[in-house]
Parts: sequence; C-alpha cells; structure tokens
Amino acid sequence: MDENALLHYPESKFCFALGQDTVCLRLRISKSDNPDRINVVYGGKYTYATVRKTAQMQRICEDRLFAYYSAVLKLNDLRLVYVFEITCGENVYFYSEDGLTEKFDFELSYYNCFQYAYINKCDIIEPVGWMDTATFYQIFVERFNMGGASKDKSYINLKWGDIPDPKSFAGGDIKGITRKLGYLNGLGINALYLTPVFRSVSNHKYDISDYYEIDENFGSKADLKELVEKAHSMGIKVVLDAVFNHCSENLKEFKDVLQKGRKSAYYDWFVITNDNPLEYECFASCKYMPKFNTSNPEVCQYLIGIATYWIKEYDIDGWRLDVSDEVSHTFWRQFRTAVKAIKPDCVLIGENWHDANVYLRGDQFDSIMNYAFTKACLDFYAFGQFGVEEFACKLNEILMRNTDAVNKMMLNLLDSHDTHRFLTRVNGDKKKLMSALALTYFFTGVPCIYYGTENAMEGGYDPDCRRTFDWSLENKDNEVKSLIKRLTALKRTPDFAAARAVISAGCGRLTVSRGKYNLTVYDDGGFAVEGI
Amino acid sequence: MDENALLHYPESKFCFALGQDTVCLRLRISKSDNPDRINVVYGGKYTYATVRKTAQMQRICEDRLFAYYSAVLKLNDLRLVYVFEITCGENVYFYSEDGLTEKFDFELSYYNCFQYAYINKCDIIEPVGWMDTATFYQIFVERFNMGGASKDKSYINLKWGDIPDPKSFAGGDIKGITRKLGYLNGLGINALYLTPVFRSVSNHKYDISDYYEIDENFGSKADLKELVEKAHSMGIKVVLDAVFNHCSENLKEFKDVLQKGRKSAYYDWFVITNDNPLEYECFASCKYMPKFNTSNPEVCQYLIGIATYWIKEYDIDGWRLDVSDEVSHTFWRQFRTAVKAIKPDCVLIGENWHDANVYLRGDQFDSIMNYAFTKACLDFYAFGQFGVEEFACKLNEILMRNTDAVNKMMLNLLDSHDTHRFLTRVNGDKKKLMSALALTYFFTGVPCIYYGTENAMEGGYDPDCRRTFDWSLENKDNEVKSLIKRLTALKRTPDFAAARAVISAGCGRLTVSRGKYNLTVYDDGGFAVEGI
Repeated sequence: MDENALLHYPESKFCFALGQDTVCLRLRISKSDNPDRINVVYGGKYTYATVRKTAQMQRICEDRLFAYYSAVLKLNDLRLVYVFEITCGENVYFYSEDGLTEKFDFELSYYNCFQYAYINKCDIIEPVGWMDTATFYQIFVERFNMGGASKDKSYINLKWGDIPDPKSFAGGDIKGITRKLGYLNGLGINALYLTPVFRSVSNHKYDISDYYEIDENFGSKADLKELVEKAHSMGIKVVLDAVFNHCSENLKEFKDVLQKGRKSAYYDWFVITNDNPLEYECFASCKYMPKFNTSNPEVCQYLIGIATYWIKEYDIDGWRLDVSDEVSHTFWRQFRTAVKAIKPDCVLIGENWHDANVYLRGDQFDSIMNYAFTKACLDFYAFGQFGVEEFACKLNEILMRNTDAVNKMMLNLLDSHDTHRFLTRVNGDKKKLMSALALTYFFTGVPCIYYGTENAMEGGYDPDCRRTFDWSLENKDNEVKSLIKRLTALKRTPDFAAARAVISAGCGRLTVSRGKYNLTVYDDGGFAVEGI
Repeated sequence: MDENALLHYPESKFCFALGQDTVCLRLRISKSDNPDRINVVYGGKYTYATVRKTAQMQRICEDRLFAYYSAVLKLNDLRLVYVFEITCGENVYFYSEDGLTEKFDFELSYYNCFQYAYINKCDIIEPVGWMDTATFYQIFVERFNMGGASKDKSYINLKWGDIPDPKSFAGGDIKGITRKLGYLNGLGINALYLTPVFRSVSNHKYDISDYYEIDENFGSKADLKELVEKAHSMGIKVVLDAVFNHCSENLKEFKDVLQKGRKSAYYDWFVITNDNPLEYECFASCKYMPKFNTSNPEVCQYLIGIATYWIKEYDIDGWRLDVSDEVSHTFWRQFRTAVKAIKPDCVLIGENWHDANVYLRGDQFDSIMNYAFTKACLDFYAFGQFGVEEFACKLNEILMRNTDAVNKMMLNLLDSHDTHRFLTRVNGDKKKLMSALALTYFFTGVPCIYYGTENAMEGGYDPDCRRTFDWSLENKDNEVKSLIKRLTALKRTPDFAAARAVISAGCGRLTVSRGKYNLTVYDDGGFAVEGI
C-alpha cells in the first residue's frame, strides 16, 4: 500500500449523509494499489469496543493518480464511528486517524477512529428535487429576442444579426423570452437561467443601479411576472442572476458615499480604501462597479431583502450567484438560510470557476457553474491536451471533489457569456460539439445549454459570444438541435436521471454508462449513444 | 517528487487569512522528497496572466509521512490566485488544481490555478486574545472544595478524602472555589473551566433539569456572581460547561412530552423514535439524558437563550461544549454568531475527541479539548507505542490539522474527568508527569491542568479520577507544583506566548523550541527546560 496516497476526512466529501440513517464513505488510495479487499469496520460510538459491523467497499472510479473506494452504510445507531481494514494478500492494515497501522486497538478507539458523531437532520444536504430532470438554457437577455413591440427603441444601436461590440444594444427583452417559451418547450428545456434583468445602463446589466426594478429596456415587473407564470405553466423553472459582489456606481447608496464621503450612512456598505481621493474595492478593475462590503450585517440584510423579494413576489425558482467566490461565506450562510426558509427548492448556483467544495458543504450553495467540466472538455476536444483516458480520469477527479448530492446539482456547461462559444473553440467542428453536448447530458449533474447552441452558433470571447439569436432558424431542423431534443427528452426520464454515471476509458474510447444508456466518446472526438 | 503525497486545499487549513491582507499557505509533500526550492507564484485574480510575484516557501515541520512547506504572503490585491513551483535539480514542476505538471499556462489560469478569491474581514478567524497567555485549571466542582458552611449537607454521603463511587456526594461547591481563588492565583492559573453547575440530581451534573438555576448543592446565583467578580478582579477567566446535546429527564419540557406524548408542544424538542412505548435518542445509552433535537429552530433559540443569559447576567468568559460533536453544525453556527455578538472574546471550546477541523473553520468553535494531544502523550509516556521521533511526528501532524489561529486556542490536556489521571496512566512516575506537563505548556495552545495534578493526585477511570482535593497539601510545596508555577509564569510572558513552537526530534530526544526557550524530552520520558 502506498500510504502517502491514502486520504479520508470525516464529515466531508469523503463521508456524508445521504439520509438520516444512511452514510456514504469514500476512501482514496493509489491507483496502482489493488488490495484484495477494503472493508469499513463500523459501529456505534458508545458500543464500538465490543459490537462492530463490516461492509465491503467497492472501487467506484479512478482518476490520474488515485482510485476511490466507496460504501453506503445503513445505520441503526446514528453515532457512527469507523476504521478501514485493508487486506493485501497475507497482510491486513487498519487506516484510522493515526494513519495506516498493522494493529488497531478497538478498546482505545475513542481516541483515534474516524467518526461522524451524529447525523443531525438539519445538516444533511437536501437536494433540490426538480434539478434531477432539469436541462438549463442560459439566455443573455439583450440578445435572445425582442418582444416589446411598443417600447422606446431609441437606445438600440445594433441591427439584429450584426456582430456586437461591448457597447451594443440590440433590443432583447423579457417579453421576447416569454414569446419563445413554446420554442424552448419544444427543445425540451425545463429551466432558464437569465443574465441580470435589473436596472442598469449596460447591455449585460452586471452593474445594477436598482435591484428592485426591472431595467426599462428589458420590460417591466409585469413582464417578469408573465414570464414566470407562463414558464411555470409549461413546467419551466426560471433562475435569475444575483449580482451581490458589486453594484453600479449609480446605486443610490453608493452615490451617497460619493457625495458625503465618511459622513454617508452607507460608507461601510462598500470597501473604501482611501477617503481623499475616494478609493474603493471594485469588480476586477472596473471602478463603475464598486464592491459591496458583505462583512457589514446591514449590507447582508439589504441583499437578502432583494433575494427574498423576487422569490416572494415573482416566484422565481433560483439564483445564479455572480462572482460568488469573492463574497463572504458569512453572507452566503445567512443568504441560504433566508432563501431556503421561504422556498426550500429554490436553487442556489454559485459562479465559482474553481474547486468550490468549501462553498458546497450544505451551508452555502447547492451547486456551481461547473467550469472545471468546461475546461476538461476544452482540453480534450479543443486544446489537444489529453486523450480519452486522461479525459475520463479528469472527469472522475471532478466528481470526487464533492458529495453525490452536490454533483447531481452541478450546472455543467460547455460555454457561457463569459467564454468563447464551444463550437468556435473546436474550430466549427459540429461532431465535437455534439459529442461534448452528449457528454454534458450523460455526466452527473444538470446540463446548461447556452442560447443558440442548438443552431450551432459561433462566437469568440465577449462580446462575440453574445451575438443575437437567429430566429430565421426557429423552425428549421439541424443535427445539433435534433440531438439536444433527444438528450433533453432523455434527461427528463426519471430512470436516466436517477442512474449513476460511471465513467471509464480504454482501447481508445471513453464510456459513460448510465443505467441502460451508454455514451461512447472516441479519441478523435466522435461519439455514439446507445439506448435512445 | 512523489505526486501522490502532494496536498493542498484552498480556503482550508492549507490556506487561511492571518489578517485582512495576509495569507498563510501550506503545502504538503512526501517527507522523503527534498526539492531544491518550492515557490508560490501568486498574484491578483484579474491580472495574474501578466503580473505575478514569487515567494519562497519554508519547510516548517515533518510528521511520519509528510513534510509541510509554508509561506506567509502580504497582499496588495486581496483576490489571491496562486500555483506552486517546485524545483528539483533541472526539473521545474507546477502544482495547481490540475495536479503536478511540467508546464503551466498562465493565460488560462482562471480555470485551474488555486485561489482565495477575496479575503472578507468577517470570514477571518478572530483569535480570543486572552487565550494567548492563559493556563486553564479544570475543576470537577463536586470534589474541589466545600465553601457553603451553612448549607443543607444532608445530601452528602462521602467523607472528604474517601474514594468516590458513581453516586457519591462529597460537598464541593461554588463558594469553595471562590475561597480558593487566592490559592489558584498563587499557582499562576488565569482561567477556570468548571464542570456543570446548573440544577441536576447527579454529582457530575451533566443531566441538567433547569439551565437557569444553579444547583442548590453547589450554591446560588449570587455565589456564581461572586466567583466571577472575584476571579475577574484577580485576572482569572471563568468558563462554564454547556451541556446542549442532552438534558435530564427531569427537564420540564421533557416531562411534558412524557406526559402528553405527541400532543406535547415540546414533542419535537427531542428525537423521538417511537411513540408507544416512548423511545428517544439519548446520551450514550442513558435514558435519563434525552437528546435535544438541534434540527428544531425552537430548540436552537432555547439553548442560545441559555448561553447568552449567563454571559449577559454573570459575565462568564466562555463555554466548554459538552458532547459537541453530536450537536448539529447548524446550531453551532447560530450559537457562535449569538455569543460573539454580545461578547466577542467569549471562548468556545468543543468537546470533540477527534480531528475537528470541520468545526474549527471560524464559523463554529474557537477550539476543542485536544484529546489527540492527550493520546500522543499517552502513547509516548504511558503505552510505549512510540519513541521521541514518532512522538514529534505525531505532535506536528496534530498541528497541521488546523490553522495557526485555532492551534493557539487549543485546550491541551493530559487528563480530565473523562479519563484516567495521567499520573496513574504512567504508573505514578512523577518525572513523566512533569515532562508531559512541560510539553503541555511548550506545545502550541493553552494548557489545561486537571485539579489536583499539582499535588500529584492519582486516579483511574471515572469515578476514580474525580477524587476529593487534599487541602492538607495546600501550603506544602512539591516538585510538580513548583514546575506548574514556573511554567504558568512562563506562559504569561508575552514573548513566550507569541513565539512559535518548533518541534523536532533526533538523537534520542524531542525538542520544542519556543523563542529563546527550549524543552528537551528524552526517550525515557525525562526532560529539561532551558531559558527559565
């Protein structure tokens, strides 16, 4: 046994409750080790010295370096304590808090066994049920469709269909989305993620000046109400974008600080680093986007008020959390508690581009935009960084970053308004796009399709990835759209949704098995789907 | 490089803020690897592709398998991103979210570098200042000293000095402690941890029937007030025991459930598993100690009300949290927020016998009773499980379980009311006791002396470890008491308190260096202290 490779932490992604009497354990070992058997020897905290059970662990997956073993335990005593027992030929080892040892003293185990001391119901990660069968469709609102025929169009400076620049306004709005719900329903889509819709002078609206108003170019509160109601009547959920890291310099509270400096009642709402001249933390280097101070409880209450208002009044189904990794954990904990109290199945999806396990332990987000999945797909399909075997390893490594419940809610995406379009990254190779799309559906989690992908829409980095949707293609079929329809239908079937995705590779192909369905991805990016 | 041994998690014990612009990073590698240099290549999240700094990491300690490198970074941009650069001869490796690679693409680093995306002030672990120079003294109240001369003594059934059984009452009380504050002050003690003092029929009082009353055998609220005031006047802090996992079957709310069953308003305050006959979760298998349901927000509010009452009304300085590992995380988070809001330097010390990092990330406890330290001392001094080199490794491994701030608040103990007395475990060998005591003071954290240790008191497991204090020895000196006095005085000096403890071993001795002070522990358990 390579002892250096062994890894296990209690109450973590290596040990988590699936229900009030069910625990999943994972143990990491070196991939090159193949012990004859790994058991978990477990029992109740107060009886372990004398009464113990044993369960065999299964090798569930491998990444580049490691193999992962897992067992699901059904408990009588919820005060779980355990050690691992590893058999290699004639040798038996124990793995405990004291590492790998040849003996283990169960009499003194209260000092050094592993434990999950009690499964308290409120600490169990409660999955958002509707995410199981969901397929998301991300809409950059300004570019999807214009519905407001009678609105003041004087702000529009881009002809629909022309290539946008950073300051372009093409006229997309909320009514435009509502009018196309039938189209989206036809694709099988059952969840929308909209980029911000609140008052803002920009086309992207990530610089919000009034969180309680819909931007007038996008429509009205009545328009949002209509969108949510019609969407719900079709079984489509609506998730909005919560920009809580920063606001616009036009937010009234920030303007007050600009005017009154230290005397402003809102001075501590922002992260002021110098008074004269006024300097403050902002998003990236954008001085027009001052950062909120979420260490200030007043700010937390203000932002939570916004989040709950749009749920209570407009019945939205979730928040995507912009730049969530720069906002305080303290805030996110309060935010989750407040949101889940009024709508337990409101989904919370962080924008964390990196391993975000620290946010995904049940007290903050449900999920994140899974850019690690994006990068793995780019490395395989676009950048030639690795072949199918390394690709499979990477995908398994990503799954081992979080618990099963979180993995099932991960928003898996190939591209977004913040990246090149995937098809452009693979030089227009539709076969690769379709292969990657199929993988997005077969991988554990929730696929998120960036608007226009069904039409093989292209585009480089922002602003080029934010082109207008080509509605001349609405009623035309094509192979990408057809695949998305088939995959979306598949994702909505409960047996596919419930089946565990098992990823392996060998002989020049990657396989994802999910119940009776199989996806094969070949080394050249080609693919085949069995079972649909 | 042994890639399997490499370990780093952002925003964890491997990456934590020391202040608003200061971050400490740790990287774990195989102990057998000795790279020429490990650098951290770091920068701001939005400028990293072009502007980067480099800092060399130092090998700070070793445990049995691993070596730990560390660097402290002072930041201009609080949005830290980084990768590690490891030089081994002609080879340079990068260690990122993608593991060990020979190249690293800084252009695409937003996908796979490590990050601590923004240091928000409210997320930084704020150390409890007075813990730096504290030495705790744990008192099992029933057995320390009787002060209430005029109280009803009819409950007393054990003659002071006789060996207790589980049902013994010897008469110790709060007044008894107050009367001996001068004695404790003479030892240099500056913090007391008292086992529970609230109303209860038992001698240990871990089965509480009224959390708002002092047990009448222990005295009155006025007695507690006097104790805290007099202690504070001598610079001594007072920490009480919070038994929030369970209560007594005599708690009025539980009696209501016993009487009314499912119709009781308090039915959901407990974890009822069967109605008829009534079955419920309890502490261990003690049916007279029903478990609180801390998944119920009402219960959380009830317990928080108790915790804040004794702080607000009696100005206590902290809570030791009984069986804290079986209580919900959700509760502890709310509890911490409420307590710290009214007294930020109120210390919260969990009773978690195992690696409790999941409770020690700044949102729950400050510290725990460090039974891993206890076990390491037992393995070396009592059980012959290992020599000085393994002992040093184990101590370093324990330090690498948590952040520096937490380590400095750890309650390091050799024994307690829940273990054999240490002197009994080492068969009465006072040299070993003194050696272990010296280590308790030199190790990072806060020493906790179990009452009577200064008199070389002996005792096996409960109830034998709860013997009465021998006051005939009060004014007699002995080598243990004299050592405790010297060490306590040392711990109170700011330069010793502030110095980092560096633990190493070799040539049959373990050394703990702490600034200009050095402790040497020899393979036979003997010791020497330099600098005092």
